[in-house]
Amino acid sequence: MNAFSMDNPVFVTYMIAGAIMVLKIMGQGWMTVYRMLRSNSGLVSPEDLQVGLINKSPSPEQLESNDYVDRSRRMHRNDLENIPAFLACGLLFVAAGPSYLLANILMYGFVGARFAHSIAYVSKQSHEVRATFYTIGSVAVITMAIYVLAAVI
Amino acid sequence: MNAFSMDNPVFVTYMIAGAIMVLKIMGQGWMTVYRMLRSNSGLVSPEDLQVGLINKSPSPEQLESNDYVDRSRRMHRNDLENIPAFLACGLLFVAAGPSYLLANILMYGFVGARFAHSIAYVSKQSHEVRATFYTIGSVAVITMAIYVLAAVI
Amino acid sequence: MNAFSMDNPVFVTYMIAGAIMVLKIMGQGWMTVYRMLRSNSGLVSPEDLQVGLINKSPSPEQLESNDYVDRSRRMHRNDLENIPAFLACGLLFVAAGPSYLLANILMYGFVGARFAHSIAYVSKQSHEVRATFYTIGSVAVITMAIYVLAAVI
Repeated sequence: MNAFSMDNPVFVTYMIAGAIMVLKIMGQGWMTVYRMLRSNSGLVSPEDLQVGLINKSPSPEQLESNDYVDRSRRMHRNDLENIPAFLACGLLFVAAGPSYLLANILMYGFVGARFAHSIAYVSKQSHEVRATFYTIGSVAVITMAIYVLAAVI
Repeated sequence: MNAFSMDNPVFVTYMIAGAIMVLKIMGQGWMTVYRMLRSNSGLVSPEDLQVGLINKSPSPEQLESNDYVDRSRRMHRNDLENIPAFLACGLLFVAAGPSYLLANILMYGFVGARFAHSIAYVSKQSHEVRATFYTIGSVAVITMAIYVLAAVI
Repeated sequence: MNAFSMDNPVFVTYMIAGAIMVLKIMGQGWMTVYRMLRSNSGLVSPEDLQVGLINKSPSPEQLESNDYVDRSRRMHRNDLENIPAFLACGLLFVAAGPSYLLANILMYGFVGARFAHSIAYVSKQSHEVRATFYTIGSVAVITMAIYVLAAVI
């Protein structure tokens, strides 16, 4: 039996959760672009101070740090610290043959926790709220990794 | 039929595109190393101001931000915001069974867009040029993710 | 024969090395959390200066850069520049059918080099020590990527 095929319902769960998380990462890049354009600030490269379609009236302050844009970059960084590890670990977890129920709890739990984390971050909830959702996502990935090790060692 | 095998031409396309993108990420690290050594600056840790093979005559200014080195770090960051998502999504996309033509367009399109983005970044092209190649790569990954969801939902 | 199954000893090596590296990434996040709580500093979002369980007596200096916390973030960044590429490349490498010996050398070599890099970073060893372990890990991934390309092109 081939674990990595659409005949395996656990793998289909991984495909859905994985594709949603990929869209989350890519979407975060577009939130940064949107916030840079909307606030006309938060640029990071000196050459971006040229006149052009994106920047019609450049000024040096556009290179200064700006919480509106930087918040989206911090959300992106937090995603990068969690989602690629989930994507790799999820595949190993599928190979380790978990039950369908456990796979759905951990994978959709991770997806839900990451979206909740982003909503808490973008709406400037307290550190405790953000930390709670971070923890749920992190524990889901750690649980999957330990499950993998327990299955093969 | 096993989608993840060298008998599947779509998977071979993924292996080639994936391995090239892995080399791109690792190579970006070496560009940062090269630029740090060549400019003798752009260090990030206080202990790097010790005398040693890498740093023969330390000075505190070596810890200051330096566009020559930092540009390579920004390129690296941009890679990390895009390439790991591509690597995970590409595998899901192979499992979803796309046509060989579509897989080649999206995967080699992504590879080409990322190299063009890096060339635009390192040669300080305008923000519009960089944004164009960023967009092509991002749209390729988003298209693959939506294809995966459409195949399984 | 299905390369991605627990019947393939090379894939089992990948599962073990991969799961350990996932735990390394997630653990690095928790080291940052621990150092933020212990030093009561190194915060990055303005709203974290609210009174709460995590921050009982806020002060603006908590948002300033702090080497104790920032060191863990730099270690995390270095992990993100290397480990996701390893996780993706390792899977491609398994598909390319390397010998069991070569797979063990490269994969556990990478794992060992990354832990040694982290120990060197956290204990503030000289740049030369850190660079040596970085190089070993990077060369392992680059070797795997070239092996993949040689197997399919």
